[in-house]
Amino acid sequence: MKLDFHKERVLAVVAHPDDAELLCAGTLARAKEDGAAIGICVLCRGDKGQPDPPLENLADVRRQEMTAAADLLGAELLLGEFSDGELADSPEARLKLTELYREFQPTLVLAHWREDYHADHRAASALAEAVSWFSASAGWKTASPPLQEPPVVWWMDTVEMIGFQPHFFVNVSRFVELKQQMLACHTSQLRRGSESDFSPLDELLERQCRNRGAQSGVTAAEAFRTHSAWKRQRAW
Amino acid sequence: MKLDFHKERVLAVVAHPDDAELLCAGTLARAKEDGAAIGICVLCRGDKGQPDPPLENLADVRRQEMTAAADLLGAELLLGEFSDGELADSPEARLKLTELYREFQPTLVLAHWREDYHADHRAASALAEAVSWFSASAGWKTASPPLQEPPVVWWMDTVEMIGFQPHFFVNVSRFVELKQQMLACHTSQLRRGSESDFSPLDELLERQCRNRGAQSGVTAAEAFRTHSAWKRQRAW
Amino acid sequence: MKLDFHKERVLAVVAHPDDAELLCAGTLARAKEDGAAIGICVLCRGDKGQPDPPLENLADVRRQEMTAAADLLGAELLLGEFSDGELADSPEARLKLTELYREFQPTLVLAHWREDYHADHRAASALAEAVSWFSASAGWKTASPPLQEPPVVWWMDTVEMIGFQPHFFVNVSRFVELKQQMLACHTSQLRRGSESDFSPLDELLERQCRNRGAQSGVTAAEAFRTHSAWKRQRAW
Amino acid sequence: MKLDFHKERVLAVVAHPDDAELLCAGTLARAKEDGAAIGICVLCRGDKGQPDPPLENLADVRRQEMTAAADLLGAELLLGEFSDGELADSPEARLKLTELYREFQPTLVLAHWREDYHADHRAASALAEAVSWFSASAGWKTASPPLQEPPVVWWMDTVEMIGFQPHFFVNVSRFVELKQQMLACHTSQLRRGSESDFSPLDELLERQCRNRGAQSGVTAAEAFRTHSAWKRQRAW
Amino acid sequence: MKLDFHKERVLAVVAHPDDAELLCAGTLARAKEDGAAIGICVLCRGDKGQPDPPLENLADVRRQEMTAAADLLGAELLLGEFSDGELADSPEARLKLTELYREFQPTLVLAHWREDYHADHRAASALAEAVSWFSASAGWKTASPPLQEPPVVWWMDTVEMIGFQPHFFVNVSRFVELKQQMLACHTSQLRRGSESDFSPLDELLERQCRNRGAQSGVTAAEAFRTHSAWKRQRAW
Amino acid sequence: MKLDFHKERVLAVVAHPDDAELLCAGTLARAKEDGAAIGICVLCRGDKGQPDPPLENLADVRRQEMTAAADLLGAELLLGEFSDGELADSPEARLKLTELYREFQPTLVLAHWREDYHADHRAASALAEAVSWFSASAGWKTASPPLQEPPVVWWMDTVEMIGFQPHFFVNVSRFVELKQQMLACHTSQLRRGSESDFSPLDELLERQCRNRGAQSGVTAAEAFRTHSAWKRQRAW
Repeated sequence: MKLDFHKERVLAVVAHPDDAELLCAGTLARAKEDGAAIGICVLCRGDKGQPDPPLENLADVRRQEMTAAADLLGAELLLGEFSDGELADSPEARLKLTELYREFQPTLVLAHWREDYHADHRAASALAEAVSWFSASAGWKTASPPLQEPPVVWWMDTVEMIGFQPHFFVNVSRFVELKQQMLACHTSQLRRGSESDFSPLDELLERQCRNRGAQSGVTAAEAFRTHSAWKRQRAW
Repeated sequence: MKLDFHKERVLAVVAHPDDAELLCAGTLARAKEDGAAIGICVLCRGDKGQPDPPLENLADVRRQEMTAAADLLGAELLLGEFSDGELADSPEARLKLTELYREFQPTLVLAHWREDYHADHRAASALAEAVSWFSASAGWKTASPPLQEPPVVWWMDTVEMIGFQPHFFVNVSRFVELKQQMLACHTSQLRRGSESDFSPLDELLERQCRNRGAQSGVTAAEAFRTHSAWKRQRAW
Repeated sequence: MKLDFHKERVLAVVAHPDDAELLCAGTLARAKEDGAAIGICVLCRGDKGQPDPPLENLADVRRQEMTAAADLLGAELLLGEFSDGELADSPEARLKLTELYREFQPTLVLAHWREDYHADHRAASALAEAVSWFSASAGWKTASPPLQEPPVVWWMDTVEMIGFQPHFFVNVSRFVELKQQMLACHTSQLRRGSESDFSPLDELLERQCRNRGAQSGVTAAEAFRTHSAWKRQRAW
Repeated sequence: MKLDFHKERVLAVVAHPDDAELLCAGTLARAKEDGAAIGICVLCRGDKGQPDPPLENLADVRRQEMTAAADLLGAELLLGEFSDGELADSPEARLKLTELYREFQPTLVLAHWREDYHADHRAASALAEAVSWFSASAGWKTASPPLQEPPVVWWMDTVEMIGFQPHFFVNVSRFVELKQQMLACHTSQLRRGSESDFSPLDELLERQCRNRGAQSGVTAAEAFRTHSAWKRQRAW
Repeated sequence: MKLDFHKERVLAVVAHPDDAELLCAGTLARAKEDGAAIGICVLCRGDKGQPDPPLENLADVRRQEMTAAADLLGAELLLGEFSDGELADSPEARLKLTELYREFQPTLVLAHWREDYHADHRAASALAEAVSWFSASAGWKTASPPLQEPPVVWWMDTVEMIGFQPHFFVNVSRFVELKQQMLACHTSQLRRGSESDFSPLDELLERQCRNRGAQSGVTAAEAFRTHSAWKRQRAW
Repeated sequence: MKLDFHKERVLAVVAHPDDAELLCAGTLARAKEDGAAIGICVLCRGDKGQPDPPLENLADVRRQEMTAAADLLGAELLLGEFSDGELADSPEARLKLTELYREFQPTLVLAHWREDYHADHRAASALAEAVSWFSASAGWKTASPPLQEPPVVWWMDTVEMIGFQPHFFVNVSRFVELKQQMLACHTSQLRRGSESDFSPLDELLERQCRNRGAQSGVTAAEAFRTHSAWKRQRAW
């Protein structure tokens, strides 16, 4: 059994610069291989994830890091430029993300699960979902014209797989190394591995995709749920 | 088995001008027949639901449309006058809706389900629920005095019945035509039936009440859930 | 708001002789007042609920106790005559209960919740549900002809309200004393109040209906869930 | 987005002769088109679904009906030959179905949802699931050797879509007519359309696949859930 | 079986001045007895809970009342000083609560359940949860240094136990009187017992802890759920 | 925070000879350290888990293996002696397990989760739960006298953590090696590691307790849920 992403335009909407690596980069690689267009929309600048000693221009550093990672994957990078810890599902944020959706024209949006561990992830989840409707509504005016129809929405796994009951798994066994290489681009964050409030990210990434693989009969996998809402689910 | 709405004051709190037609108009008609007072509180102006070509004074047109529909039903119409797509559970919105509740004095509020498909529906849901408490609290000062006690809250079905597990059904078999006539008042929206992001509303209305009927042994029905919260549920 | 049981035939299907008192006797009294026919079907003989010192003819004693209780309520009593602790959803048990349904001709069955605390309650739940279909099926031959259509099924509260999320509450404020009088008929069980594995039943009854009342704005209530299955739910 | 069934061996395990038509025939047709092998395992003989006047040799008639329907689809037919209303997840039934699995060698089993409306559907669900493990276990001896590995299990929709939250939808828009033609083979059952305990099956089939289509953006669809159990889910 | 709170620093984060009495004061007393440090953080001033006739300086009165109650318990009192009915999970509120967490240095936070009956309780729940992460993040600058690691979060019971499925119970049988004495400090609220929108608080407190006790085999108990989120649960 | 098992009598009730190693051996070791009595009740003989080439006297071999493992742990071993794949919640099985409970006198039973992957695990779950009531009921006669009161029941994690939402975690970081040594006693099963239907058990054990540890902030953990049923939960 295989999901075929041919002709799709897949946009991952994540809160922070290194979230896609952990939760959906393998699926994006799979989609690209099938001929889909892929993009990563990072909503926050990552400006509060300071290593010790702190970096003066952290937001700049992280933009370079995520650009390098997206290049490895061959994904278009879209930036929300919101401040860490202040992301909210506000009219302004909706308008900004609406324009980003209209620029990329996604047919499928990968969004954080609504009960993920971090308030920014949950705000990103609400925002990605709200805009999946508004971006196709002619009543919302932005620089670009509205989408032809709302994109489908899939919810991504949570960090450490906590409290997330997958609907299905995508086999990413051939892309574990790519996920690790992308993560390695985020040097500012990998330096934080010894902080008590921060798991070593590379171990976490390895553990999570191996476990999701063990649960679904393959070497490595990423887990998703479909979104049960009108116009945001499409039969396969 | 029959639910008797005698002596109730039933207020449907909906996000947009044509939501009550789809989700609860039959139940309001049933309640009116039993001698209940009925009202529809429409929170948004409907100002972003533009047909093509657009109408200059869309908000005015939609106010006339919903007034005509409410007249057909014999329901009092209350207006929130918020902008489409910007509804939020804010202190200001709470205060405004508190006053509307106090004017109508509902004993039963019909509210959108918290996981319905549209961000405005979800905001309307949160707002209707929050105000079900505040409207009966003397500490909240508005023009009118507080309610004697918080109204009961029922959650209405979702559009296309997606992700909604009903607690019970109300038999609206004798009111399908009335629902359709009310919907026919919304001429600005029916013109949008050919848009790719918009199902023909009349077909959707027919399909939904017929299916809810098939699930509950009658010709047509509307589905609801009770709200499990202190002072918002009352034994029958 | 009031549920009207007029013209219904309500049958409570319980595992043991004193379960109806605790979980649904007030609702049966309400239904009777509305003109409904009411019945209690007790599946087990109660032959393992021995007080200390034990009664020789316990099953006989309990039959007299439950007859007295049903008489107080004015309910028809139907007996399954199964042994305590051995109730199972078997073909034989289905056939026996099918005939009992066909004798009483229920339009509404009150059944134990599928996750209640006692294995017999769970077997009674499965059995009452299975037979709600088979009793109306011409392919199942018993002494009496099949029902015209399957009865509606409601799930009753659990003992101590554990793990049960009510869909709605029935106001039984005027019937608390009747429930207590019915319970008082079960003298063999009330003698067990001091056993460590057995709460005093009269306190339990009082606590449960008072609490369900406090949750639903009345003096005393009984809580139920509708059964979401084809032909077993009917719009009100 | 498209699910590709290439190389799969898909076995629908249903309780009664006409269940596959309603719940999964379109998906089987889709799989066949992709090059998959498809089969239908009907567990019960259908011997209690008597029309009026009754047919003497009902089980024979229904075998011919289901054979004709399977032929239309091009599916292999496997028969459990259990009696209607007596299906149970017993050691004997497990052994029999284990051998059927080993004859067909499924990689994917479509099974009834564990909370579907009919006791036979629920028994079929438990049985199909239990055997998905045992059929691949060398410790279970039957005429044929064990499967290489347990098949994946998907849960099928419920009748009238009651209480079923789909994980995903399969587009069966091009196979609605085929589903209807298959159903038309079951002449003994279509004669039962006027019975009070029996919806006209053709209307039910049409309504269900159209609604699942409306929920998932296509003309017609069938809905499924994946089974969250070790070795019974495989990444796509 | 006993939970040992030794070395913990337990902070209850509640919306209103008398919420801790009802939902967690017994657990705080238990923790203190084990040698834990305990605190109560009251987010709102209680300025809308007016008795009749109203008190001019209600916020002052309530501050004295809650100070007296906290003194009885021996708990540190921290004040959010937000207005009743306006609590929201905003950047400003997060910053303020972050500083309060850093002052108290909790290892365990007791927070309102996300679906409790009052909008302030739900806002307090969201806020307490968001800050459980941010308070340990070096990127968030406040007067005090960040926590060593995020505190564990437990969800407290709801008022009247509605819609709350406990994960575990804490035995507070020896602290019922203390809970009552603490509640008795809130004289401004106890005067409101006869209001139609307000249950007598002392009866509610008694009923709730007795019932939770009856459900868990002790005289009185408080009920909790663990929070399933990364870094907010710790093995015992 | 620490759970103290002092004075408890903890009985793990598992389906197969090597289930305790994977799911609860660390918790038993923790309990023993606190002074609790611990036991393992293995319901099935393990007679269908044949390695290749098969062992003639597999049941004997497995009894020796589990005895060795229980000895390592210092746990009493109780045997149900049922056949693999045929475990069912029958009156006979209940009676047999009732007597085993009465011999061990548990205050806490660790049981399989009701939705675990294997039919025997689910039957063991139902059986362990049913008997938790019957073993304390004087009406059930076996060789030994009834328990003073029903034991508390906790549900154990599922294999590969699939579909299990933990209520809490027990820190077993110091007992990983012991779990591995116990597993190493099951040499007949470890030889099956290369079978396609069988994960290498040692890797599975390591992965599962490390992951549960990562989710709960420690090196290794075991996950549990409390059982929400009358008399089977006790406040801590």
